[in-house]
Amino acid sequence: MNFSNSTTFLTDMYELTMVDAALKAGTAHRKTVFELFGRRLPTTRRFGVVAGTGRFLEALQRFQFTEEQLRWLNDKQIVSSEAIKYLENFKFKGDISGYAEGECYFSGSPILTVKADFAEAVLIETLALSILNHDCAVASAASRMTIAAHGRPCLDMGARRTHERAAVSAARSAVIGGFVGTSDLEAGIRYNIPTIGTSAHAFTLLHDSEEDAFRVQIDSLGTSTTLLVDTYDIAQGVERAVKIAREAGGELGAVRLDSGDLVAQAFKVRGQLDALGAHGTKITVTSDLDEYAIAALGAAPVDSYGVGTRLVTGSGVPTAALVYKMVEREDSAGNWIDVAKKSASKSTVGGEKYAGRVLSESGYAAEELLVVNCSAERAAEVLAEHNARPLQVPLVTQGVIDDSRLGARAVEVARDHHVQSRNELPYQAWRLSEGEAAVPTRYLDLSA
Amino acid sequence: MNFSNSTTFLTDMYELTMVDAALKAGTAHRKTVFELFGRRLPTTRRFGVVAGTGRFLEALQRFQFTEEQLRWLNDKQIVSSEAIKYLENFKFKGDISGYAEGECYFSGSPILTVKADFAEAVLIETLALSILNHDCAVASAASRMTIAAHGRPCLDMGARRTHERAAVSAARSAVIGGFVGTSDLEAGIRYNIPTIGTSAHAFTLLHDSEEDAFRVQIDSLGTSTTLLVDTYDIAQGVERAVKIAREAGGELGAVRLDSGDLVAQAFKVRGQLDALGAHGTKITVTSDLDEYAIAALGAAPVDSYGVGTRLVTGSGVPTAALVYKMVEREDSAGNWIDVAKKSASKSTVGGEKYAGRVLSESGYAAEELLVVNCSAERAAEVLAEHNARPLQVPLVTQGVIDDSRLGARAVEVARDHHVQSRNELPYQAWRLSEGEAAVPTRYLDLSA
Repeated sequence: MNFSNSTTFLTDMYELTMVDAALKAGTAHRKTVFELFGRRLPTTRRFGVVAGTGRFLEALQRFQFTEEQLRWLNDKQIVSSEAIKYLENFKFKGDISGYAEGECYFSGSPILTVKADFAEAVLIETLALSILNHDCAVASAASRMTIAAHGRPCLDMGARRTHERAAVSAARSAVIGGFVGTSDLEAGIRYNIPTIGTSAHAFTLLHDSEEDAFRVQIDSLGTSTTLLVDTYDIAQGVERAVKIAREAGGELGAVRLDSGDLVAQAFKVRGQLDALGAHGTKITVTSDLDEYAIAALGAAPVDSYGVGTRLVTGSGVPTAALVYKMVEREDSAGNWIDVAKKSASKSTVGGEKYAGRVLSESGYAAEELLVVNCSAERAAEVLAEHNARPLQVPLVTQGVIDDSRLGARAVEVARDHHVQSRNELPYQAWRLSEGEAAVPTRYLDLSA
Repeated sequence: MNFSNSTTFLTDMYELTMVDAALKAGTAHRKTVFELFGRRLPTTRRFGVVAGTGRFLEALQRFQFTEEQLRWLNDKQIVSSEAIKYLENFKFKGDISGYAEGECYFSGSPILTVKADFAEAVLIETLALSILNHDCAVASAASRMTIAAHGRPCLDMGARRTHERAAVSAARSAVIGGFVGTSDLEAGIRYNIPTIGTSAHAFTLLHDSEEDAFRVQIDSLGTSTTLLVDTYDIAQGVERAVKIAREAGGELGAVRLDSGDLVAQAFKVRGQLDALGAHGTKITVTSDLDEYAIAALGAAPVDSYGVGTRLVTGSGVPTAALVYKMVEREDSAGNWIDVAKKSASKSTVGGEKYAGRVLSESGYAAEELLVVNCSAERAAEVLAEHNARPLQVPLVTQGVIDDSRLGARAVEVARDHHVQSRNELPYQAWRLSEGEAAVPTRYLDLSA
């Protein structure tokens, strides 16, 4: 295994020292159940969007310690030689189930449920949280933007506004939230996402005149390209762009506006294009957009939205605040017991949850039902009785990862699943304002 | 070159299509000067901190297209075969200078200056922006936190709150901003940053009692470890922790508080520890800290701060809003001309800038002086006349990267340099409130 490909060190150190201590105490192999969930949605989110599951499973495939890592752990005396022996042969052999990628989630929704030895479950904790916290945050923001765009295409152009590797994952998450393309080439090659692009102001400035720049771009990319018309004077830029495309024998594909008051400019530019007879030339806008700016442009004659900063930084919510908590474990006699932290403001409901989305008679989601303290079979019956769509699917079975959740194909599946899941939500889900979750969560404790 | 190691695809597609068009037009090899800078600081930043330079240079070492990438570009018809031939042999051969890593920066400061062919300069644009936008945002937040901590150690525990690879870079940036350790193992092994950790609530919950959990941890990690005392009842937890450490023959290293009202709890727990005679046992706090919460804890008996979410998400400013703009280029006759975008709200000052920090008689920074439209030699004289410390250093010379800016050692150097640079700033720099930059920027145009 290549050093840079191993994912085991993408972790907090304490996961390893806890395993070390538990190995010595003989508690490391107690069976446990951990759940990954959000205690509550951010106030600007009526629903969350599950994203990152496929990436997490891909990372789990590469979750093996390298010799270099083990040597370093030993040299730094981070864990004992007994622990190093354990890590040397480590491969996750537990079970993981969870919400399908693209599914909407709410407060308490068990997005992942990990059933494994304590040691196995904690070693993957940080990695699971990092991936899901980032990807769910971006997908949730993306979904709000595509709601606001109301069918007009949204394009990810945020690569330069976030960490270079996070950008790739952000593009993937954006697609799950309904975006149709990305400027990021790595996302294109890795996940087969359509890549898009226009040109930069520097390209215009490189040439001796705006005419030259437009002509060079059209020569290279054809008249269907998008010309950036706001380097100098926008009205002149639009006139030149249309003229040069016609000289090249075609109608210009689109113009891009990247500065100023986009609403006012869109109307002005559309009027100018129409007056020039360029009815087929589209307008794409790209300056500081978020879901609110997109909504404000709803009545403006705009054809597509290029979104950067606010997409890749989660539109004010850069991390999804998901946590990973032990909810059940075996005791020393091998009996399963619920466990939960009791302290102020961060309490957790103990016991494994079985999740279903209760549908009302009108077919819309009415409740996130979390059944607790019963068998899986009993939970399935209870969910059916409540007309609840079961939400958890198997992802990893005794260490074997479900292949269908991996790779580029999984992104398409997740995107389609999100459309279905979002369409099922009640009207409140489509509101951009702050407020309550679109669907309330109810715990149904069958032990009571 | 390994597919995953190549950094060329961490880019917006348009960088490549612009190169393609310019190659066809014969303009791709025009000499250009690009600057990477922020138009203005975010309102909550009195200064920015340069970070990521070393990572960018490391990424530049691996900036070569792989066969697989070239095949994909060809298959997707993203660029022409002429462009693919150019990319096949691509290696950056230009010059890059910039602010030393760790330096403070202000509005307009040319953090990087790239002198190269247009094609070379634009191919590295997105990568440079991604890395610097992320790393500067985190380092700038970190520096505010270490100011607020006033000498008490700050520790990065944010891995789980950001993208798994961004976490590694965030730890590196945090150290440049004055943090003294990280929980992230990859940051530890890659940059030789001290790694730290305690234990999680799950560790306590795994065991049959809090006593058991504490005993197991102390058996494994010694009495100098940090025990998490808020899983059940804090006062009981503290009493147990001290007692069990003493039974093991030592004094407990520290207790960690991770929930509730930290100020009130810190006083209560300190009082309890002192009453128990555990005067040497320290208190570390870790719940939702940022620079404001740290400042609020300034008078509380706390010994160190573990910072997560708000550090790795830039404490409200997740991206540094840096841009990369062409400021000068050769024309078709080989003469250098200033260039600048003129449109509303995003205008750029043309011409290469020579930057110096003007020091007042008291020795504090009074002005960021950017000299423009003159030779490097003349600029050096002018900066000296103004008692300005020159800020730019060579990073890449004709494609050869300055080794001293790479690797773990560069992080230490940057951290030390930041201390010096920050100490030079006037009092305003230490204010946490919103407001003006601590040092104003002045452009001195010598052509006028």
